[in-house]
Amino acid sequence: MYAPPVQRLITELSRLPGVGGRTAQRLAFHLLRASDEEALALARAISEVKERIGLCETCFNLADGSSCRICADERRDPEVICVVEEPSDVISIERTHEFRGRYHVLGGALSPIDGIDPEDLKIAELYERVRSGPVREVVIATNPTTTGEATALHIAAGMREIDPNVAVTRLASGLPVGADLEYADELTLGRALVGRRAV
Amino acid sequence: MYAPPVQRLITELSRLPGVGGRTAQRLAFHLLRASDEEALALARAISEVKERIGLCETCFNLADGSSCRICADERRDPEVICVVEEPSDVISIERTHEFRGRYHVLGGALSPIDGIDPEDLKIAELYERVRSGPVREVVIATNPTTTGEATALHIAAGMREIDPNVAVTRLASGLPVGADLEYADELTLGRALVGRRAV
Repeated sequence: MYAPPVQRLITELSRLPGVGGRTAQRLAFHLLRASDEEALALARAISEVKERIGLCETCFNLADGSSCRICADERRDPEVICVVEEPSDVISIERTHEFRGRYHVLGGALSPIDGIDPEDLKIAELYERVRSGPVREVVIATNPTTTGEATALHIAAGMREIDPNVAVTRLASGLPVGADLEYADELTLGRALVGRRAV
Repeated sequence: MYAPPVQRLITELSRLPGVGGRTAQRLAFHLLRASDEEALALARAISEVKERIGLCETCFNLADGSSCRICADERRDPEVICVVEEPSDVISIERTHEFRGRYHVLGGALSPIDGIDPEDLKIAELYERVRSGPVREVVIATNPTTTGEATALHIAAGMREIDPNVAVTRLASGLPVGADLEYADELTLGRALVGRRAV
């Protein structure tokens, strides 16, 4: 029904997450209506990101060169390492302005069902960083999901073997700010109780 | 917070309709995680569509050359012209398999508030097609919205001046198939009543 280049664009757009056939069609018609300049700016931005962005050699965060901006920043404390699953998690934590250490991006979480074992993540590389330290604290900031928790436990156990003097911490689990107890799920409320703090 | 190429990609993605900042970020990280092949296929599809797709010289539908697939198809009745606002409307009507004539894409609808006057649409070109005819019927399939209705009335009046013997019709307005009278809005139900047909 479409000319082949239009069909190809719709097919490629519908591979994006959360983009179904109808949305892909709408986006394609938007790009067709848009100026050449606007549409080609998007095409160029995609190519450029694939050409220029790789992984940081130290922490495996996204990097525009061999080191990411955080590893290249001398003011960041190299003795505190925050371990996250994905590069997008680095952004989320940076937005809080509460962390001044460095990161370590695992590239996912342990999930034996999906065939993701410790060797598939940058866990050995984390241990190597700790060994060549000095490292004071490892903050495990994997997601509070089954796979994220399993990954946290695995790394905590590994860290005890490598150097029991390095503090290993985990992000607090509890009620989100602004939440209502009435609507909190039991697991979250249970965690909030177990992790209660002196006021 | 992002490396410049990543920031540019997020900015370009967030120009797409229905894509906010968060979605743009999610799409950007998807493209970063995707294989070079997959991401570059999208970039190429965008460039290719802008290079190769233009407007049909006759009907202003999207075309991969000087004529669209419908104008190039000898089996389509050239004496019946369906007038639509956008190329995407051609696809919608083609999907019904109920129309075997040709199309004429206006490129929008009349909207004096937005500065869209008859000269901004392909209305003169429609009249020219009718004059150089023969044309038996013009089916006006602009949207059943204020601007679409205004466009339909404008074209119907113009057609009466050019050739009162050409039938000018409008898509039926009424209850969508599968609708429930209880939930139909009064305007639609009113149209369905006015347009009632013998069984």
